Amino acid sequence: MKMYYFDNAATTFPKPESVYAYMDAFYRKYGVSAGRGQYELSNHVHSMIEETRILLYELFHCTQDQGIVFTPTATEGLNIVLKGLSWQNIQTVYVTPFEHNAVTRVLEDIKKRYRIEVIQLAVDIKTLEYDLEKIKYQFQERRPDVVIMTHASNVCGLLTPVNEICKLAKDESAITIVDLAQTAGLIDLDFSRKYYDFGVFAGHKTLYGPFGASGIILNKKIELSPLLFGGTGIDSANPNLPDSIPERFEVGSINTMAIAGLNAALKWSKKMGGTSEIRCLERQHLQELIEILNNYSFIKIIGFRNCDSNVGVVSINVEGYISDEIGNILNEQNIAVRTGLHCAPTAHHFLNTFPSGTVRFSVGYFTGEKDFEALIKALNYIEINM
Amino acid sequence: MKMYYFDNAATTFPKPESVYAYMDAFYRKYGVSAGRGQYELSNHVHSMIEETRILLYELFHCTQDQGIVFTPTATEGLNIVLKGLSWQNIQTVYVTPFEHNAVTRVLEDIKKRYRIEVIQLAVDIKTLEYDLEKIKYQFQERRPDVVIMTHASNVCGLLTPVNEICKLAKDESAITIVDLAQTAGLIDLDFSRKYYDFGVFAGHKTLYGPFGASGIILNKKIELSPLLFGGTGIDSANPNLPDSIPERFEVGSINTMAIAGLNAALKWSKKMGGTSEIRCLERQHLQELIEILNNYSFIKIIGFRNCDSNVGVVSINVEGYISDEIGNILNEQNIAVRTGLHCAPTAHHFLNTFPSGTVRFSVGYFTGEKDFEALIKALNYIEINM
Repeated sequence: MKMYYFDNAATTFPKPESVYAYMDAFYRKYGVSAGRGQYELSNHVHSMIEETRILLYELFHCTQDQGIVFTPTATEGLNIVLKGLSWQNIQTVYVTPFEHNAVTRVLEDIKKRYRIEVIQLAVDIKTLEYDLEKIKYQFQERRPDVVIMTHASNVCGLLTPVNEICKLAKDESAITIVDLAQTAGLIDLDFSRKYYDFGVFAGHKTLYGPFGASGIILNKKIELSPLLFGGTGIDSANPNLPDSIPERFEVGSINTMAIAGLNAALKWSKKMGGTSEIRCLERQHLQELIEILNNYSFIKIIGFRNCDSNVGVVSINVEGYISDEIGNILNEQNIAVRTGLHCAPTAHHFLNTFPSGTVRFSVGYFTGEKDFEALIKALNYIEINM
Repeated sequence: MKMYYFDNAATTFPKPESVYAYMDAFYRKYGVSAGRGQYELSNHVHSMIEETRILLYELFHCTQDQGIVFTPTATEGLNIVLKGLSWQNIQTVYVTPFEHNAVTRVLEDIKKRYRIEVIQLAVDIKTLEYDLEKIKYQFQERRPDVVIMTHASNVCGLLTPVNEICKLAKDESAITIVDLAQTAGLIDLDFSRKYYDFGVFAGHKTLYGPFGASGIILNKKIELSPLLFGGTGIDSANPNLPDSIPERFEVGSINTMAIAGLNAALKWSKKMGGTSEIRCLERQHLQELIEILNNYSFIKIIGFRNCDSNVGVVSINVEGYISDEIGNILNEQNIAVRTGLHCAPTAHHFLNTFPSGTVRFSVGYFTGEKDFEALIKALNYIEINM
């Protein structure tokens, strides 16, 4: 079953060889529970986890005001951050038009208990530019308490100017939250600048790690009520969770194998030249993808501004076909894409592709010439047979 | 770093060879996101997950009234079940004296918002028998709304007669919840009997799977409010979570590698003869452990009734030493044990080992003669040097 993979926005595939190899070797040799001050194997696992945390601190330029908390998924990370805020003091939440259901559905649940208004940040639908002047005006009209931004749309790859918007938000003392699911390890974000409060990353996407090792970068000065309760391996006599971070938010058995995979992925990235080099190659693949898609008049690219303003996630539609039909034909041609709403219905409302959605192609570091050749073959096939 | 492993209650180690091999091979070949009706690789992953679910249905004798939901940890499973109940209608909760902080701390949080009383089920501290007559009386005195029971203590291995207690609880129409962290795949539990509502299992313990694939057996007729919100891959236009189970409770990217590991573990268990055979060997190892420990007069075994009433988790203390000191000496002798409170302070209160805790030895299917030989050597060393 040879497939040419254009679904890297769901999860990057394949992973670097060192990720597979290290996970397997580590789990076979050190497959015990992490612990501090227990037996040697367990201490060794603990050290590997803390090393991984340090690699992430470096990657995100964290300061001592920030902590890194591991979570099994970015979705869980977003739940922990969003549900943990003091909603009784929050009235106005700004979001991009491109939020994933991991944000939208959490807010919908919070709305059932708190009276909050959720407002979309102004984006020009024609130019796809975030209108910073208008956003400044929005913030003056209704002061932001919380600003939640996906760093890049998982539907069309459009990057959010989080730097500029977070600065504006911080001028109003708002809490800022950036969903890095499509960008961590790909687009540099400097958390030493004081205007990012929370970041949530998915280890298995642009960080090239496995499932099971995602997490939160958090501003320790903002109190979060915990969402999950359980054993923390420390302070066990306390009927409440300990105050210390990360323990307060890392309950239950931590997935040591997944974190070993992320550890290997972070080292691989450094070896390859880091974020800028990973992006450089991914950007080439994005450019090649766009050039190919542009060759077919029946393809309409949606939500694409340019290769600097978008990451390697491209949505298209074909007139007269619903996205699932195109997806099925591509699947028969061994091209793996994801069709429909991509768990981000508001993005499709904004892009005017609701409810049938789009066909999403997403490239990664490992997308190769053979993938593009197969894609061209498949698109030629569609062109001839439509 | 050769260690002799007596920390199987934290996580079983090693895993069956097929678990390591299948996880690695599966993730290398099929490391994409699960999906239905997308591309072939993704459908294949979906099928593997559903096959794993069916293996679990079989293992727990589930009926069509029940669903299986995957969670990253048993702790998260317990949070989802406990926090999901309709607490405004609940007054009285019964627990065993042996609950883990994954239960105790969740209840503590719930108590901050709801007026509930948490009562311990009657256990005779001398005989370690659950006093069913007294429990019946307790239930008459104060009708149970919810009964939460660890199936076996993670401190001393004592089994709870969940069958009998759940029957009594169901006579009072209580909701029953069994924490199977130390027993799933080891002690048979028949969910086709209508008196078990919820079970929570840890895939990486007595099921011999990896970290990251735990879950909930749930009674679909009891409504649970979701704890986590996010993308479900289906019904994406819905601002709320879909009603369908398991999707309602499986948000975000499911850990396909971990579930592949659990899949292999469940097949391995079947091949080895299933639950009864796994238990048979584990029971032999428990018996051998007890016989060894009994040879040393300085060792006081705590909470052990007999090899039929306990699983292979044994706590001890040594007079004049705190548990950590013994743990350190054992570690120097390359014996891996876990000391302290084991995230279950109430169990230690009950066993009168609070606050210094115990030294916990826990055996598994793969505990071998070399482990026992090393243990004897280490205990001889302690005897001579104390």
